[in-house]
Amino acid sequence: MASDDLKGRDLIVTQEWSKEDLLKVLELAVKMKANRFGYTHVLKDRTFFMFFYNPSVRTRQSFECAATELGGHAQFLEPKSMRLKTKTTAGETVEDAARVMSRYACGLGIRILEDKVTKYGEGDELIREYARWADIPVVSMAHDKFHPCQGLADVMGWIEWLGPKGKFEPEVLKGKKLLVVWGHGALARSWCSVQEAILIGSRFGMNVTVAAPEGYDLDPDVLAAARKNCESQGASLEVTHSQMEAYRGAHIVYSRNWMSPDAYRDGEFHKQEEIEKAMKHTDWICDASKMALTDNAIFTHPMPIDRGHEVTDEVASGPRSSIYDVAENRLHVQKAVMALTMGNL
Amino acid sequence: MASDDLKGRDLIVTQEWSKEDLLKVLELAVKMKANRFGYTHVLKDRTFFMFFYNPSVRTRQSFECAATELGGHAQFLEPKSMRLKTKTTAGETVEDAARVMSRYACGLGIRILEDKVTKYGEGDELIREYARWADIPVVSMAHDKFHPCQGLADVMGWIEWLGPKGKFEPEVLKGKKLLVVWGHGALARSWCSVQEAILIGSRFGMNVTVAAPEGYDLDPDVLAAARKNCESQGASLEVTHSQMEAYRGAHIVYSRNWMSPDAYRDGEFHKQEEIEKAMKHTDWICDASKMALTDNAIFTHPMPIDRGHEVTDEVASGPRSSIYDVAENRLHVQKAVMALTMGNL
Amino acid sequence: MASDDLKGRDLIVTQEWSKEDLLKVLELAVKMKANRFGYTHVLKDRTFFMFFYNPSVRTRQSFECAATELGGHAQFLEPKSMRLKTKTTAGETVEDAARVMSRYACGLGIRILEDKVTKYGEGDELIREYARWADIPVVSMAHDKFHPCQGLADVMGWIEWLGPKGKFEPEVLKGKKLLVVWGHGALARSWCSVQEAILIGSRFGMNVTVAAPEGYDLDPDVLAAARKNCESQGASLEVTHSQMEAYRGAHIVYSRNWMSPDAYRDGEFHKQEEIEKAMKHTDWICDASKMALTDNAIFTHPMPIDRGHEVTDEVASGPRSSIYDVAENRLHVQKAVMALTMGNL
Repeated sequence: MASDDLKGRDLIVTQEWSKEDLLKVLELAVKMKANRFGYTHVLKDRTFFMFFYNPSVRTRQSFECAATELGGHAQFLEPKSMRLKTKTTAGETVEDAARVMSRYACGLGIRILEDKVTKYGEGDELIREYARWADIPVVSMAHDKFHPCQGLADVMGWIEWLGPKGKFEPEVLKGKKLLVVWGHGALARSWCSVQEAILIGSRFGMNVTVAAPEGYDLDPDVLAAARKNCESQGASLEVTHSQMEAYRGAHIVYSRNWMSPDAYRDGEFHKQEEIEKAMKHTDWICDASKMALTDNAIFTHPMPIDRGHEVTDEVASGPRSSIYDVAENRLHVQKAVMALTMGNL
Repeated sequence: MASDDLKGRDLIVTQEWSKEDLLKVLELAVKMKANRFGYTHVLKDRTFFMFFYNPSVRTRQSFECAATELGGHAQFLEPKSMRLKTKTTAGETVEDAARVMSRYACGLGIRILEDKVTKYGEGDELIREYARWADIPVVSMAHDKFHPCQGLADVMGWIEWLGPKGKFEPEVLKGKKLLVVWGHGALARSWCSVQEAILIGSRFGMNVTVAAPEGYDLDPDVLAAARKNCESQGASLEVTHSQMEAYRGAHIVYSRNWMSPDAYRDGEFHKQEEIEKAMKHTDWICDASKMALTDNAIFTHPMPIDRGHEVTDEVASGPRSSIYDVAENRLHVQKAVMALTMGNL
Repeated sequence: MASDDLKGRDLIVTQEWSKEDLLKVLELAVKMKANRFGYTHVLKDRTFFMFFYNPSVRTRQSFECAATELGGHAQFLEPKSMRLKTKTTAGETVEDAARVMSRYACGLGIRILEDKVTKYGEGDELIREYARWADIPVVSMAHDKFHPCQGLADVMGWIEWLGPKGKFEPEVLKGKKLLVVWGHGALARSWCSVQEAILIGSRFGMNVTVAAPEGYDLDPDVLAAARKNCESQGASLEVTHSQMEAYRGAHIVYSRNWMSPDAYRDGEFHKQEEIEKAMKHTDWICDASKMALTDNAIFTHPMPIDRGHEVTDEVASGPRSSIYDVAENRLHVQKAVMALTMGNL
């Protein structure tokens, strides 16, 4: 395929891109990591809009940095200062906003989750509404359902850690065991990162185990899609409440807090209630004794980490922690996604 | 004239620039539209300061994008985070702020209107105070009285729509009928955009009709200036309360809400009261039946549009709607203004 | 020494840099002032992070402008939108934040003072905690103890004003009298700028006099360090409550408000109380009659100035006022610091 295949494409979830296209992103990201300032013509003097319904550290820093390193500029926009139409206030429609932005920018990133939605799936709908009207690519910068750039950074990091040094061999993930395990904590996090990890991990042929206390089921549609991914790769998906069993033989441990399916009720996000509920499960923490059950697993997390709750310092800062490399990869995969969908390659 | 004629000039209202200078801006804007990334040396590594007393979508996006496409950078500054001296608080004087900024930046844009002023004209005074002390050009990014960049984008779009395809002939506006008509709505908008449209339309020889319900007079000084503009061009200015009559024979329909002269009283902006008053005039909306009275008029609006109040979806999204082209032109005229007043051309 | 000596170095206070290194910064700043856009390759497409715990005018504008003029980009980040761990809330540790940022950016600036600390020294500790974990240079953009870039801009301006025209001779400061005098005012300012001025002034061999009403002592450790600086240069440090005597023979008058040592008590910043206390000392203002006691001194101030309190308009806008030149120098010294510590020179 020609290098402009992906030009104009939206990225809302990796599941909607072919494996071939995901590999294309990863391969370019690897090249960009090796030659960090060799791609500054790609978005030269172009503008990328970032819409932050929710604030963020990593995502803001890495996207703005990505645009800069491609020679362009990312505008940091907060919709609270936009006069957008809502059910109760006059303002601009998404149609009008998206069609005008398409005249100015080469791409649009949107972040919406947690307290900025009133029910699970609402953020996904809004992003798709922008994508419907925009003539430019729309990229999720994390929303209530998915976090595709995190997923790409995850697998890039896992391949680097598990594969041969200095080579990038995606097949190394095939048949490996990925444990996505719930951690307690005081942040009531959205499902986007873990769901994306489960989906993309299963695309790469991993055996995926999801472990959580009772009452912390994820989106059944996502799990069904992941199960299909696994089947087509000859791998398996397992969902369990038995934590210790789940750690056994794992190659990658992804310990992360997430909210329960009850978090959104009556059009509200019951954050405090979620935190109180989660904080009771003090045994759901990734520590050295559990890591000892694995097959010398690496520890992974999309950060920011809630140390002492999701994971102990010993593991998070230990020799098998991939967290900073995965975080760095956010920059590289986002540069690659922007280059392939919006850029002059 | 040489190309550096406009170097150093402020742009607070188009009325203070000669017709020749306005044409110079439009001609450069047309060239820049055709060769969008051909001017990236003009503000290379220069800084443009944007002061947003009021938030904005279009203006922020288009100015920041304009600076980027000229090779420079626009800093997004919110005076609320500045320690500026006011009547009641200690802080920095405009003199000090403007003189220091002149050492850092190549130009300064200011937006101040609506709830950030306590009476009509106060924003205009503040911009002129900055312009008095700054050694760099000061550009209005919309203030309580005028919105010069919107006016330039308007006429650019009207000329494109009414003139021959592929040619830019400003004379096409001569003798055409411009209807500026009040629309109801829930936003209590400032007079800046419509006043600028009336002024610049009359400079280009248009017959201008202003239609509004009783109680919605605009600034009499602005109307007097527009009347003089018309007279010198052999055109006419009409002000009426009769909506239907006003639509007849129009070539351009500009339907837009604006606040009444009573909006500022006792040092306050009575927004809620204005909205309630305006929302009673439900018949003041631009719709297909009214457009049928015109001479196949185009619809124009500075956006964001309050759909369902100022105009129906049918007209706003119809085949004669110029709104997205006019919005796009904000980018091009602002690049041209910045290039001519601040740049290395 | 080679030009990369300073690569990777933090700048938290000028006192921790050798005199040679400070001169290296000043010499490069002078070159950059003369050839303002001749260094745009230095941070080409690199990202500098600015962390503003406290808002700022000059610092934001000058740092962001500096990065732009070096070909790079400064990201404006407000920690309030970061989910950082605090004593009472879950969130990210400084270790994690700093280590990830080191993967994205070439440098990190931090501003923290006034109401964002609960006791004097806390901001200094936080900056040093970031510096401990970051692999990239950390620069103070003003914190509760020091303001190194202001100090560098100060001496650069003083040398320009007191030395021969067109030449940059730092030795001109040797033996000159620097008066740092408290001014009343309604801003309850931190000690960072005046302490930095006292330290760097004494490094350059000036006789420093600090004058303030009783109850406005500065940090005794800083004064002790300055005294040592003076001794090693054959100069003197004097601390007095006698204002008029202090002006006599001064070559540089630095009149500025600062808070008392009682401002932080019980973990709180008692701003209103400080303002009321300070506003009683109405005789502590720099005016023409006091300037007449000096040896034709220049007036200096880090801005923003609280006119009418710290200094009269007559002096601040008079022919011996160096304020705008010093403010401009912020840009040049910061470009030089960034170039030497983070850049490709």
